[in-house]
Amino acid sequence: MSTMTTGTVYLVGAGPGDPDLVTVKARRLLDSADVILHDSLVGDGVVDTIPDDVRVENVGKRANGDRTPQAEINDRLIREAKAGREVVRLKGGDPTIFARGGEEAEHLARHNVPFEVVPGITSAVAAPGVAGIPATHRDHASALAVVTGHEDPTKEDSALDWGALSALVAAGGTLVILMGVGRLPDNAAALRAAGVDPTTPVAMVERATLPDERVVTGTLDTIVDVADAAAVDPPAVTVVGDVVGVRETVARCLGGSDAMAEAPVTTANGVVGVTDSD
Amino acid sequence: MSTMTTGTVYLVGAGPGDPDLVTVKARRLLDSADVILHDSLVGDGVVDTIPDDVRVENVGKRANGDRTPQAEINDRLIREAKAGREVVRLKGGDPTIFARGGEEAEHLARHNVPFEVVPGITSAVAAPGVAGIPATHRDHASALAVVTGHEDPTKEDSALDWGALSALVAAGGTLVILMGVGRLPDNAAALRAAGVDPTTPVAMVERATLPDERVVTGTLDTIVDVADAAAVDPPAVTVVGDVVGVRETVARCLGGSDAMAEAPVTTANGVVGVTDSD
Repeated sequence: MSTMTTGTVYLVGAGPGDPDLVTVKARRLLDSADVILHDSLVGDGVVDTIPDDVRVENVGKRANGDRTPQAEINDRLIREAKAGREVVRLKGGDPTIFARGGEEAEHLARHNVPFEVVPGITSAVAAPGVAGIPATHRDHASALAVVTGHEDPTKEDSALDWGALSALVAAGGTLVILMGVGRLPDNAAALRAAGVDPTTPVAMVERATLPDERVVTGTLDTIVDVADAAAVDPPAVTVVGDVVGVRETVARCLGGSDAMAEAPVTTANGVVGVTDSD
Repeated sequence: MSTMTTGTVYLVGAGPGDPDLVTVKARRLLDSADVILHDSLVGDGVVDTIPDDVRVENVGKRANGDRTPQAEINDRLIREAKAGREVVRLKGGDPTIFARGGEEAEHLARHNVPFEVVPGITSAVAAPGVAGIPATHRDHASALAVVTGHEDPTKEDSALDWGALSALVAAGGTLVILMGVGRLPDNAAALRAAGVDPTTPVAMVERATLPDERVVTGTLDTIVDVADAAAVDPPAVTVVGDVVGVRETVARCLGGSDAMAEAPVTTANGVVGVTDSD
């Protein structure tokens, strides 16, 4: 690269975790970039596929374990591009879904740095999908809402309108909560308080698309205990809505012919089940 | 393939249209499948990349132009798999987002046919993203809702709760309407009637991620006229919410260094603009 021209910053989605679920375009950029700055949410498997001659840096966390301030990341992007480098800014899922891609794009534009958005597969869609839960369904769900669950729903200035989300679920929509393990009890309570039927099916997909993916299912009333008993850890995607029930019908055949030999585990009541799948 | 064992059906997302936005896994399946049955919504560019020795069939439409009945597609999937073939069922975007992937999975499971869901990039996220409109944004949008716009919103039994969707937009969320060109006037009216501010920014992204992609922007009040004047045709994705305003800040730098030479066209009032981008 010439250092005379400003390089392009590619805001690239790494997808949900499985390195095979990056796009062909992302794959090419990962193989050819001068420098890759990635978040902690990018799957290790994806990072491992980057060739040795590409400079790679995890800017998700600093050495002391704190999150790198966004301003510092913004400055790094400008500096690398102004030095003429082709920069990949790699984010888990899609760069525009709760990943600050929009803010970084605004910063780049303010500094006249050319950029491109390279979409990735968001876990909001992929995690339910691979677990046999279609986010939309002709008979069950004609709307999908996606939020993050790490905000305190009892906070006065909560940006989330739980009433609207609850109405959407009550009308048969699907609600997907990203990053919602820590606040699961609060969020489940907020949905119940807003009038969502406590028997509404809920699933949590832990480490979706990775070899050790796990799925637990329950209802709005039971999911906190189910997740607790199964020790569900982040990252996990929570799905609320009738579509969760589809998994029960299809799980047996999920994962292709190799996986069909190992039947999924389901408990006697058929509501709560912990299964491994891929 | 042996005809003794049932083949696997892969429900594969082809992404938003650009063949480079299929996943590495989809790419491999497209190159190695015995048979590929695809929808009309799959981009021609993607279909063109399938090797000549793979049997490919468009099951989206029959010879007379009618849509193939779902039951007929379901039967074909079973028949091909029971004949021992590895079948790719290729859908535009993601197979579980308004693409009947869930229904096909249920049908396959009822017939003991092993299947796998291979997520793809949904236009609901990619179309805004590549147009410089982040579907979520820390300052603007903490929730994203996705619906299809082809239903009559005045229908008594409309599955969509426009009240809930409007509340979500009013609370700063982003609403993405897929397949909403035909019913744009009805849907815009339904949102206004449900109380969404008529000055809320709206964008339509036509043929997102394809070389002839176009973006038009307006407000809830003006978008019908804007789309009409620009003759927006399907397929197009409609985005409603404050995040649409981000495009104005970033469009100049969008598309990487090559594209920066051609500045986007914007009208004097800065609200309505028709631009080509990629």
